Amino acid sequence: MPRPVPVSLNEGAPLAARFHAVRALTEALAAPLSEADATIQSMEDASPTKWHLAHVTWFWETFLLRDNLPDYRLFNERWPFIFNSYYEAEGERIARFSRGMLSRPTMAEIVEWRAHVDQAMTPLFEREDLVPLIELGLAHEQQHQELLLTDIKHALFQNPLGPAMWDGASPRAAAQADGWYAHPGGVARVGHQASGFAFDNEGPAHRVLLEPFELSARLVTNREWDEFIVDGGYQSAGLWLSDGWAWVKREGICAPLYWHEGDQFTHVGWQARDPDAPVTHISYFEADAFATWAGCRLPTEFEWEAIARGQEGEAAAHDPAAGNQIDTAAPPMPRGSAGLFGDAWQYTRSAYLPYPRFKPAAGAVGEYNGKFMSGQVVLRGASCATPRGHSRASYRNFFYPHQRWQFTGLRLAKDL
Amino acid sequence: MPRPVPVSLNEGAPLAARFHAVRALTEALAAPLSEADATIQSMEDASPTKWHLAHVTWFWETFLLRDNLPDYRLFNERWPFIFNSYYEAEGERIARFSRGMLSRPTMAEIVEWRAHVDQAMTPLFEREDLVPLIELGLAHEQQHQELLLTDIKHALFQNPLGPAMWDGASPRAAAQADGWYAHPGGVARVGHQASGFAFDNEGPAHRVLLEPFELSARLVTNREWDEFIVDGGYQSAGLWLSDGWAWVKREGICAPLYWHEGDQFTHVGWQARDPDAPVTHISYFEADAFATWAGCRLPTEFEWEAIARGQEGEAAAHDPAAGNQIDTAAPPMPRGSAGLFGDAWQYTRSAYLPYPRFKPAAGAVGEYNGKFMSGQVVLRGASCATPRGHSRASYRNFFYPHQRWQFTGLRLAKDL
Amino acid sequence: MPRPVPVSLNEGAPLAARFHAVRALTEALAAPLSEADATIQSMEDASPTKWHLAHVTWFWETFLLRDNLPDYRLFNERWPFIFNSYYEAEGERIARFSRGMLSRPTMAEIVEWRAHVDQAMTPLFEREDLVPLIELGLAHEQQHQELLLTDIKHALFQNPLGPAMWDGASPRAAAQADGWYAHPGGVARVGHQASGFAFDNEGPAHRVLLEPFELSARLVTNREWDEFIVDGGYQSAGLWLSDGWAWVKREGICAPLYWHEGDQFTHVGWQARDPDAPVTHISYFEADAFATWAGCRLPTEFEWEAIARGQEGEAAAHDPAAGNQIDTAAPPMPRGSAGLFGDAWQYTRSAYLPYPRFKPAAGAVGEYNGKFMSGQVVLRGASCATPRGHSRASYRNFFYPHQRWQFTGLRLAKDL
Amino acid sequence: MPRPVPVSLNEGAPLAARFHAVRALTEALAAPLSEADATIQSMEDASPTKWHLAHVTWFWETFLLRDNLPDYRLFNERWPFIFNSYYEAEGERIARFSRGMLSRPTMAEIVEWRAHVDQAMTPLFEREDLVPLIELGLAHEQQHQELLLTDIKHALFQNPLGPAMWDGASPRAAAQADGWYAHPGGVARVGHQASGFAFDNEGPAHRVLLEPFELSARLVTNREWDEFIVDGGYQSAGLWLSDGWAWVKREGICAPLYWHEGDQFTHVGWQARDPDAPVTHISYFEADAFATWAGCRLPTEFEWEAIARGQEGEAAAHDPAAGNQIDTAAPPMPRGSAGLFGDAWQYTRSAYLPYPRFKPAAGAVGEYNGKFMSGQVVLRGASCATPRGHSRASYRNFFYPHQRWQFTGLRLAKDL
Repeated sequence: MPRPVPVSLNEGAPLAARFHAVRALTEALAAPLSEADATIQSMEDASPTKWHLAHVTWFWETFLLRDNLPDYRLFNERWPFIFNSYYEAEGERIARFSRGMLSRPTMAEIVEWRAHVDQAMTPLFEREDLVPLIELGLAHEQQHQELLLTDIKHALFQNPLGPAMWDGASPRAAAQADGWYAHPGGVARVGHQASGFAFDNEGPAHRVLLEPFELSARLVTNREWDEFIVDGGYQSAGLWLSDGWAWVKREGICAPLYWHEGDQFTHVGWQARDPDAPVTHISYFEADAFATWAGCRLPTEFEWEAIARGQEGEAAAHDPAAGNQIDTAAPPMPRGSAGLFGDAWQYTRSAYLPYPRFKPAAGAVGEYNGKFMSGQVVLRGASCATPRGHSRASYRNFFYPHQRWQFTGLRLAKDL
Repeated sequence: MPRPVPVSLNEGAPLAARFHAVRALTEALAAPLSEADATIQSMEDASPTKWHLAHVTWFWETFLLRDNLPDYRLFNERWPFIFNSYYEAEGERIARFSRGMLSRPTMAEIVEWRAHVDQAMTPLFEREDLVPLIELGLAHEQQHQELLLTDIKHALFQNPLGPAMWDGASPRAAAQADGWYAHPGGVARVGHQASGFAFDNEGPAHRVLLEPFELSARLVTNREWDEFIVDGGYQSAGLWLSDGWAWVKREGICAPLYWHEGDQFTHVGWQARDPDAPVTHISYFEADAFATWAGCRLPTEFEWEAIARGQEGEAAAHDPAAGNQIDTAAPPMPRGSAGLFGDAWQYTRSAYLPYPRFKPAAGAVGEYNGKFMSGQVVLRGASCATPRGHSRASYRNFFYPHQRWQFTGLRLAKDL
Repeated sequence: MPRPVPVSLNEGAPLAARFHAVRALTEALAAPLSEADATIQSMEDASPTKWHLAHVTWFWETFLLRDNLPDYRLFNERWPFIFNSYYEAEGERIARFSRGMLSRPTMAEIVEWRAHVDQAMTPLFEREDLVPLIELGLAHEQQHQELLLTDIKHALFQNPLGPAMWDGASPRAAAQADGWYAHPGGVARVGHQASGFAFDNEGPAHRVLLEPFELSARLVTNREWDEFIVDGGYQSAGLWLSDGWAWVKREGICAPLYWHEGDQFTHVGWQARDPDAPVTHISYFEADAFATWAGCRLPTEFEWEAIARGQEGEAAAHDPAAGNQIDTAAPPMPRGSAGLFGDAWQYTRSAYLPYPRFKPAAGAVGEYNGKFMSGQVVLRGASCATPRGHSRASYRNFFYPHQRWQFTGLRLAKDL
Repeated sequence: MPRPVPVSLNEGAPLAARFHAVRALTEALAAPLSEADATIQSMEDASPTKWHLAHVTWFWETFLLRDNLPDYRLFNERWPFIFNSYYEAEGERIARFSRGMLSRPTMAEIVEWRAHVDQAMTPLFEREDLVPLIELGLAHEQQHQELLLTDIKHALFQNPLGPAMWDGASPRAAAQADGWYAHPGGVARVGHQASGFAFDNEGPAHRVLLEPFELSARLVTNREWDEFIVDGGYQSAGLWLSDGWAWVKREGICAPLYWHEGDQFTHVGWQARDPDAPVTHISYFEADAFATWAGCRLPTEFEWEAIARGQEGEAAAHDPAAGNQIDTAAPPMPRGSAGLFGDAWQYTRSAYLPYPRFKPAAGAVGEYNGKFMSGQVVLRGASCATPRGHSRASYRNFFYPHQRWQFTGLRLAKDL
């Protein structure tokens, strides 16, 4: 089966149309997978494909249909227990690692549930008061589209046979612009400040003070990472954060995830590694060590955002034409060389913390972002697996410093 | 889908016919399961259904076809790595807990492999020298039939929805005879001594000295186990082996596996527990504590065998008509009340150790039994999930003292 | 034995005199302990008293004597392996958790080593170029004085007999001023900017933008913490960070460390808890949950510093007369009610990260602070166990969010 | 300090005299150690020296003084909680791994307790009914003498400085007789059957059937073990039990415990290994693999006992003149080349299980042996650390198959 071609719509389209487009993409992404592929779970951090399809549906059913349609009856009363992810306010739920035991319900039953929910949603698109919650639901489902892709990649990687998710060859990387974006320092305004949807963690908008700095115009490549390895990067304690060095020793880390000799595991199976492609699937610890080795540092999330805004403005930040460019597929159209979005999420040295005057929303959806604000680091940009139109200049992605099953990379910064 | 009705043949049938009957039963057992059901693995001790179907086929392909048909080519050269279980002499293999990641190959591919191997076996049934190895292969596949049933039961149990494997209700237990079988003690001859197939660990036949003892004519029932619980059995340190007590405290054990209030999880889902049915799914630690509580003890494996022989003789020990009586299904015909086979494997207090002059076979098949002779205990008899005709008076099953996902029960003994 | 009375000197005293005062205090703190007390290690985070005495001596011997006295010979060539803490550039060292196995060398041998090193240091006090390194050594030894006190408290706590470290009763807490310090927001200058010693992580000084806020004039007390408990604080998932809630469930946390019913374990054994004393021995997770429960939040480290500077100025920040006020002892003189130092380290919501343009020092001492800049949170102020004169307004202490064996407390903040 | 010279007495001496001799030896063994040495605990399996001194005293105080002297008052009411080892019937107790946190009570306090108990015991030596319990107490304290020696060896081994417990050099091993003891098979009587003390697990005496076999007249030596290593013994899966091979891989085992290159850690520190000395500090897994490699097997415990009885008779089995010949010390007098006692405990292939009609004693002392009868293997003989006169032909020592901090070795057997 070939790579799914997403049918998507930009933010200007009617809400109902955008809803159906997002829902359709989720199913298109799952289409190449068998029932068995869609059931397995490779680690606690990842979830089965089938679970993703069900969990996003649970979100719509719970926070939109159940809470706003008086006559709505749950499709199945026992499913919330297994498809709630982490919403304490919604009650007990299955242990995270048991998601991989859910051979039932079947994919067909879940698809039936999806259709049922999609239909039931129709009257709610007229409700002006629900627009923010529906926008949240759309963004939520898009996040799970990316997770679906990274989780199934990790699951298939466990199989010694190296199975492909779909057919096709990896394209060569587009050339990246050289050079550095300079910033003179001073007061910058950051955080979500335009109209349009944003997650609560992107606000409130506020001012920060920046020192003069430069940000690389391009991502670090596989070729550069190879040089880091050859130069003994993984053996040099002095390059690493203390926790990072302990992690390297404990886990026997000696290369990015998915690397094996000259090859790299991808959605189309094992492929020769493209030296010019941005390095991906690295941890924060690795990104930080590389930056130290290169005589640079990681940018702060606000430095990154200041450059992104200077170039693109909030609305255009994530090129809506850039598509869902899953790692193994040729981009449907060239991205601007100046773009900070696409290819890989970029580590910043900023911890994931609340902005001044941040308040989580009331109710269960208030658990969406705020409660994760400890121990994680902020990544900015977007990756080849991020749905088109999903990210923006104020977007804050976040992961623990050892995690690397996402398409994570880095862009160097230095002081001026 | 209803419970599979096994078509089976006794030992007198032609070897080829018996081969095809055993192979067919394996597939019949898997038939009610979806691709997803057949892929999941609930713990390191258990394997996916699909893996069982493939592993037994690997056994035939490796030890019969590859080793004895000069022109035979492997169906797939990369599959031995994933379907070898524990044969060190056959090379490296996938980590045991990764068996649950094998969404590929598909069930259809494995069934195709099975057919290919079945066909290729035809010339080998003529080879007199291969009869012992083919008998071993049949017994091996039958063991995996039982594991398939206990493993999938454990996997489905993880699902909060409590799915059934097939339709139908649990039958009431047949009445068990009361009373005790007495033995006067003295020299008994034990171990495999008749013609016909036996595993290497059942021999050599040898003599042992027994003290006078009695063995209960019946298995301990759920009702008696309830009394043990009500009497504080799981709270009384003095009843337990030290390792058993530590296990109870560490794991929070307070009932047999699969018990929840008055119900019990079965292959047809959650069912009201039958108080007259033999208790099953207990650990050695629990069996030993119960026996102590009851003022009795567990028998040794030789006491058990002496009684079994006295009653049935080796050849008839496991009633060939008793069928594959999976826990939830009515037995196709009554078993003799005196039978020691069926319903549940019975714990003995004997450690699983080699008999005098035991020597493992040469080559990889020598790893079949001998290398497991430490840390495990012997169980005798057969369970409702044991294929008909598989067990016998000298049969030695073995598990670690904490394991309880098999149909394990107990029969009391006492000194005279 | 009574509580040790520290003989200390302020920063204006001659360097040699200050050196000998610091060295003497370390030994005075260890004086009440037996050889056995000084040897045990209760967890990987903590070190034996004897190890602290030796490690600080290793620091002087390595970075001062060995590197700067051409003829100096190591007191014992095998000791660096066991008394190096974490300096990768100084070579391999004993696993951290094995420090508790060091019954040898004896305390007497370590004291002899201390005297030897103290004597050998004499010529180096004349060396102007070494002043910064000697100041670092003094600050380092003072940090270990505090760790010695918190580590031995944790070790003695493991003993069911509840042994006291020295005699005497816990004093009642001094009354704390009520009210809030208000700050109008705007640009504040933070980081070490005065003359005098500071750790590298306190600089470079730089400007930050603050929003208007208030900081409580007092620390949260045991009485308030009791109210939090009674109100179900430890059972309300909604108050907690996600990682914090997982920690509460996993570890069964239901009160601060060292609490048992109405009592609290202290250096003089189990004592009735003083409701007016500041709460101590809480984790970041607990501090954050409490602040949420109280309708407030934790301050950022820069908010804290701005208030501290407004009140005291850098030089006077940590009252040199305030003494080493180990938790169980009456303070030798009253502290100003406006003081932010003493009693307990105060959690901030700031992650421990490098300041703009921060560069670690070259060589092994560059490992002092920089490599720990991931996963930890900043605490400000000083505790009852912090040596007098050690802290200051720019001082950054740091721990992992689950740790609580230090004297850690909190001071609330809120937006204006 | 030199090695302690035990003053001991054989079984014919008056009970009170034997009591005092045993008590004195315990203290003599601890005499070379500092308070710190005596406090540390290197692993859960081992206990601190000080704890051993206290625990055996708890045994006397509890089961003799408290239970039989109406007016006796406990020396300290809180100590039973920390010095009870595993007697559930005696109530809750400190977690096993926390024994290493007991810097208090001090050695002096424990010695004072010992003297108090010793004095209080005087009237009980007249009580005929208590003789069996006093004999049990003596045997118990002797067992802890051996544990004291093996536990402190393990603790000192953790110290990179390789400290010695006492002065002196390791003697060369005495020559061992070559050859094999042959046994014709048949019925043998085993178990304790003479007068004199024995543990409950040594009875009841009963008959067993033996096949003809041979038992080596000597223990396997370090030289032979070196050959096993050179021949790839630790790399050859085929030699190992399955659990053993998993243990080798998981723990990275490649030599006996305490070996490092040509040296061996002993009570007098690191010493060159004597190739002619019996190998010690091996696990059951290693012993079994070696026997397989050598084309032999381990004996059963009854084979061993049959040979031991044939040669020595029960009473003389453990030469009372052989002394407490701690590994590093010259034996005070030569042992007979035919002796099966001394040097090393010898693995058998027998699981540690109850003899026919075995019943544990009533009350707490019934927990002494019976509850450990799962998962362990029987060792026979005695080691260089076993107190003189402690062992006998029916003596059953037992450990888990992976443990090796005791002086464990092996003697080969083969079928005839």
